[in-house]
Amino acid sequence: MSEQQTPVQLRHLCRSNQFSQQTSGRCPGYTQANLVILPERDAYDFLLFAQRNPKPCPILEVTNSGSRRLHDFAQDVDLARDFPRYRIYQQGKLVAEPLAVVDYWRADLVSFLIGCSFSFEAALLQAGIEMRHITEQVNVPMYNTNIVAKTAGRFHGNYVVSMRPIPENQVVRAVTVTEQLPQVHGTPLQIGNPAALGITDLARPDYGDAVTIKPGEVPVFWACGVTPQAVVMQSKPEFVITHAPGHMLVTDIKDQDLKYQL
Amino acid sequence: MSEQQTPVQLRHLCRSNQFSQQTSGRCPGYTQANLVILPERDAYDFLLFAQRNPKPCPILEVTNSGSRRLHDFAQDVDLARDFPRYRIYQQGKLVAEPLAVVDYWRADLVSFLIGCSFSFEAALLQAGIEMRHITEQVNVPMYNTNIVAKTAGRFHGNYVVSMRPIPENQVVRAVTVTEQLPQVHGTPLQIGNPAALGITDLARPDYGDAVTIKPGEVPVFWACGVTPQAVVMQSKPEFVITHAPGHMLVTDIKDQDLKYQL
Repeated sequence: MSEQQTPVQLRHLCRSNQFSQQTSGRCPGYTQANLVILPERDAYDFLLFAQRNPKPCPILEVTNSGSRRLHDFAQDVDLARDFPRYRIYQQGKLVAEPLAVVDYWRADLVSFLIGCSFSFEAALLQAGIEMRHITEQVNVPMYNTNIVAKTAGRFHGNYVVSMRPIPENQVVRAVTVTEQLPQVHGTPLQIGNPAALGITDLARPDYGDAVTIKPGEVPVFWACGVTPQAVVMQSKPEFVITHAPGHMLVTDIKDQDLKYQL
Repeated sequence: MSEQQTPVQLRHLCRSNQFSQQTSGRCPGYTQANLVILPERDAYDFLLFAQRNPKPCPILEVTNSGSRRLHDFAQDVDLARDFPRYRIYQQGKLVAEPLAVVDYWRADLVSFLIGCSFSFEAALLQAGIEMRHITEQVNVPMYNTNIVAKTAGRFHGNYVVSMRPIPENQVVRAVTVTEQLPQVHGTPLQIGNPAALGITDLARPDYGDAVTIKPGEVPVFWACGVTPQAVVMQSKPEFVITHAPGHMLVTDIKDQDLKYQL
């Protein structure tokens, strides 16, 4: 499959179930998005959670109730079909992993598009900073932390962070590059001291895979988009749809234009 | 009255009805905030409106339903008493302008603290840029525009902008300074062309007062915090409380720390 597809072409392939793989590396330069779909009755608490915790939960767009369309991040989009794969949870239990959620759709569903670290990794790579997990072809290592998110209604929990080893002489650059991207987690939360976050062993991440940390490299921690999903699941909502991990929506917005979407 | 008061001292004076004036110039360096209080049933639409229109509607903090306290922007605060003066609207009509709203309080009220242009004017002044309306001791001129805000539920309307004349050679600086303050309207919407916003006569603002524009100065337009209030009023909600114009809450957060509250 060519990587020269446009975002709308890739979405059409998803829509017809011809593409159901992970989206990492697809349509380079275009913003990819995480998904959380909740019934209206939980939507206010979730939006408030995001307002109070913008670093782990950067909202790109929220749909009107029942709508499967977007206004800002994509034209020609069907949110119930254009992700390559979904997950359906009932009472906090994974019950299905379909290629479309048309059959599960309800008029009271609100979709939240959430920023994805692919966007800031593209910016870091462009600034000449190696992403070790990409080099080693594994998932980024993620860790539970002792940072308590601000509670909103039924949603509460702790931050999850992702870690990237950065050479000492590139740490400042990693901060200034990600400062430009507040809509995808922004600046790091912590530089160099995992214990300050309650992380005891970098070799044993809670999600994703461990990566090599070379001499002269510093572990740098960013708020992670797994946080909102972990927080939602913890509250065992009656019904929630998410994307399957790594199976994102590719939007029409370029990463370099993200900061102007504010 | 001394201007050396701390924010908490000024709030205590408001709380005991000993201070009921405008807050411009009070506790310099500390962030002041606008207020919109709505019943829970309207809160989701308003929060969504703010999420979709962050430039005119920069939310600083949202309370839990019924709570009169804050977590982030002030300790020792009572939102029903610590603004110098309030306005009560019923079905879109101004019915009272009390010094406290304790008697109007309901368990279903949600308070929205919204960023105020005082914060970015302080930053512009510090950067050596004259604020003409301050020099001329009038209110900043504000104009209705043709920019349609993104609708959210019952809330819809057009942007209101504020205008400040800036010398040509300081326009770039005005952009870079306000780019640092996304929580108080951020960068300008328009530089130099009022007609592009549908504004026909700068000498006749829709709100506030006209100011002198000298030769070599450019009118620069920013999204204005009057927008959310205008938008709320337009929908004639059953019940809403706001601060009285110019009578803000003085918070414990310094303007220079605002960008780190994200």
